[in-house]
Amino acid sequence: MDDSIPSGLLKEWKIGDNKLKKFTSVEDVNDIDALVKKALAYKVNPLKDATLGINKRIGLLFLNPSLRTRLSTQIAARNLGMEAIVFNVDKEGWQLEFEDGVVMSGNTSEHIKDAGPVLGSYFDILCIRTFPQLVNREDDYSELFINAFVRYCGRPVISLESATLHPLQSLTDVTTITEILQAKPLGRKPKIVLTWAPHIKPLPQCVANSFSQWMNAWKGTGEFVIAHPENYQLAEQFTKGATITTNQDEALKDADFVYVKNWSTYEDYGKIYENDPAWMLSLDKLKTTNDARVMHCLPVRRNVELSDDVLDSSHSIVTQEAANRVWAAQAVISELLK
Amino acid sequence: MDDSIPSGLLKEWKIGDNKLKKFTSVEDVNDIDALVKKALAYKVNPLKDATLGINKRIGLLFLNPSLRTRLSTQIAARNLGMEAIVFNVDKEGWQLEFEDGVVMSGNTSEHIKDAGPVLGSYFDILCIRTFPQLVNREDDYSELFINAFVRYCGRPVISLESATLHPLQSLTDVTTITEILQAKPLGRKPKIVLTWAPHIKPLPQCVANSFSQWMNAWKGTGEFVIAHPENYQLAEQFTKGATITTNQDEALKDADFVYVKNWSTYEDYGKIYENDPAWMLSLDKLKTTNDARVMHCLPVRRNVELSDDVLDSSHSIVTQEAANRVWAAQAVISELLK
Amino acid sequence: MDDSIPSGLLKEWKIGDNKLKKFTSVEDVNDIDALVKKALAYKVNPLKDATLGINKRIGLLFLNPSLRTRLSTQIAARNLGMEAIVFNVDKEGWQLEFEDGVVMSGNTSEHIKDAGPVLGSYFDILCIRTFPQLVNREDDYSELFINAFVRYCGRPVISLESATLHPLQSLTDVTTITEILQAKPLGRKPKIVLTWAPHIKPLPQCVANSFSQWMNAWKGTGEFVIAHPENYQLAEQFTKGATITTNQDEALKDADFVYVKNWSTYEDYGKIYENDPAWMLSLDKLKTTNDARVMHCLPVRRNVELSDDVLDSSHSIVTQEAANRVWAAQAVISELLK
Repeated sequence: MDDSIPSGLLKEWKIGDNKLKKFTSVEDVNDIDALVKKALAYKVNPLKDATLGINKRIGLLFLNPSLRTRLSTQIAARNLGMEAIVFNVDKEGWQLEFEDGVVMSGNTSEHIKDAGPVLGSYFDILCIRTFPQLVNREDDYSELFINAFVRYCGRPVISLESATLHPLQSLTDVTTITEILQAKPLGRKPKIVLTWAPHIKPLPQCVANSFSQWMNAWKGTGEFVIAHPENYQLAEQFTKGATITTNQDEALKDADFVYVKNWSTYEDYGKIYENDPAWMLSLDKLKTTNDARVMHCLPVRRNVELSDDVLDSSHSIVTQEAANRVWAAQAVISELLK
Repeated sequence: MDDSIPSGLLKEWKIGDNKLKKFTSVEDVNDIDALVKKALAYKVNPLKDATLGINKRIGLLFLNPSLRTRLSTQIAARNLGMEAIVFNVDKEGWQLEFEDGVVMSGNTSEHIKDAGPVLGSYFDILCIRTFPQLVNREDDYSELFINAFVRYCGRPVISLESATLHPLQSLTDVTTITEILQAKPLGRKPKIVLTWAPHIKPLPQCVANSFSQWMNAWKGTGEFVIAHPENYQLAEQFTKGATITTNQDEALKDADFVYVKNWSTYEDYGKIYENDPAWMLSLDKLKTTNDARVMHCLPVRRNVELSDDVLDSSHSIVTQEAANRVWAAQAVISELLK
Repeated sequence: MDDSIPSGLLKEWKIGDNKLKKFTSVEDVNDIDALVKKALAYKVNPLKDATLGINKRIGLLFLNPSLRTRLSTQIAARNLGMEAIVFNVDKEGWQLEFEDGVVMSGNTSEHIKDAGPVLGSYFDILCIRTFPQLVNREDDYSELFINAFVRYCGRPVISLESATLHPLQSLTDVTTITEILQAKPLGRKPKIVLTWAPHIKPLPQCVANSFSQWMNAWKGTGEFVIAHPENYQLAEQFTKGATITTNQDEALKDADFVYVKNWSTYEDYGKIYENDPAWMLSLDKLKTTNDARVMHCLPVRRNVELSDDVLDSSHSIVTQEAANRVWAAQAVISELLK
């Protein structure tokens, strides 16, 4: 772009403007508890910053389906006075290219290098959901898509779930645990267990990676245990610091919170090795816990991942957890608006 | 959910809160004429309650396509100051499960028992469109989907057309008939005819069921006649009270309003038995009517269901009828906001 | 419709009301430079007419995918205080019929004669995107779809790209050229070149037709040259007045602006004859230009239509061009609101 163009005339983003904040990982957060406190304050008073985002626009770009993330982020933005525009990139637009230097004679119609700056000129904050391909681990774990998006759009970016992480979900999870503990203090830090569950499809590791990352970073965590079958270990970069076991019963003992989630294999990438129904969390298994609260990011396959008798019991806080998505998103957007 | 959590902190819906109003059938309406009057008042002054829904949100969930219902309900909500969010469940989210107790190892990804309360936590009013499958009559006529939705979302629910009924359409129809009669009184109650029309696909019985139900419940109806070919009878629960005939000519005689609509068979469920083009309504057939107004819910297949010469004549009030969808929806939403 | 109905009760459109403005071609514009000036004024102050469209609604109907057009028009409408509602006709509704008098026993579910007036009753301004079929030239060039839409909806219509033209893009292009020249005057009218580029799919001629039409109509154009391979000539109705050549090098000489765009054949309609990669614009080819600015409507296939080294150089103004879509749309909507 020509620097001699009067800047007053230009609302476009220029390369070099990109000293902007983002929310794509726990590493983007300075103080988890401060953010949680903010989220819980919005829950008490959703409209307390109703003019903070006035005349500002947030773009929500989806390359994959979404229910909770989509709706809660829209609502959070509106609570802050922002205009929210949803765009289903894959269905309403066309397939984006993220590789550099490629001859675009295949299925992709537009490069993120071109789409990014344009979207940056249209919106004040951009959000994007880009699932992993689950084909090549190096590709997915390089976070090519969201990193290119952050690089080229030149605006604060919020991850609505990327190839390896789902930070809005994890902030919600910490917020929900905090809320529960504030209402009924334990007098000690909680034992929190992440347990693998069966599923019929190979799913991303995002939610499990991200929950592990946040549990390890959060100072409110007491013991954090990850339980999974043989060969289902997660990437060490996210789990480091956790106790890891293949014995679910042992993990559940005295647990205060049990997070249930399926993920596909990480080592021999994106596979389902076994799908032992014995790993489904049932009411019976909760007996050895400390009357544990059961969490899940939803959608959940009933009687595959979690039994009806757990989900329909007072152990389950999945609705409260999903409802809290709004306040977590609102806390993050309000931070980026500053 | 833990009852010890201070309720001020919880915006989620709890089971037991569900003493809420709904609009899924004429049976949910106390006074049809009062609702019609309200709709017509909004037509005169669309913005007279422009702040009634301020800071409230309505969610429009579609499991099936929609044009008029979608747009008119969005517009009606906005006229009342509400934030309206559309969500195409099938395209933007994933397939919902409605059966209780099922092992979810098939195509459905989320149970309404889990999605419902979450949606209830996001919205003040929820609307849903769920067409019948037209495979198993008992399943469709149990209204499993919308009933489960009402049960689990814990918010006032508006049907945007369910497996067997389309009440927003029928309220619009009664509103339109009332409007016409107010402008040009007959001096007597009108003869209203619902006549089957040919179509190339097996369609739901919803609009015909619903129109019958409302005509039979409305005190403004004079004679109400349903005309259809042999073997196309509708469910008696909706038609009881109507005169039913297989002689279209006889039905049309002296009619003041003719509602044209195709439906598939009810007895031997969801079939097209015959598709006699003689049942298409043409201008010629209207000669024996009392200069009848012709109605159709749209979309209409021209020259299959209704001839061009009727639709392009002054008999047709299909545009007026479709335009009135806004005011009917607005009347219903305003009732549920109270 | 019955004329005896008090007009105060009717918000529907009536045939005969249709003395309304539209924006479907340069022929709908009285003064290009005045419209450009308006667009650039909105760029300086996007919210200067923030209440002009208050309580008015704009409908954006898409029969085809869109990113920039969709988002920029939504944003432009919101900047003017309008409510914008997007409707993906093909995905959220059903297929429309545009042919007159047809027996609708095929794939189309609703005639524009019926959908148009209904949409007109819901919205104050309507926008529609309808790509050509690229099968039958006479059909596409008759602009059946958008003309029927204009005729039957009875509201001001904005083309979001039709079968043969893309006027919002062209207004943006003239606006961008004007902006560049105002910042760095040449002291003469610019030489502007439209050059064909290779692509892997047969694309519409819309952008090229429209740019040609606007260049020939605009009094700011100096020399306007169209360069394309043999057999890729455009329709004379749009190109008349331009210099046309099959020698790209000659065309580029001393060019101030180079517009790069693929289109399929017009004569032997909708084909790709050859796809000579030598026609891809590269940095090397720009050497003989007057340090030309390079334009493209996006999406662009990198290293097929345009090389990375051009798009990533200071020659490229494609981001500025795409960002300007907002202000061009805002200028047009504000004109139609008057």
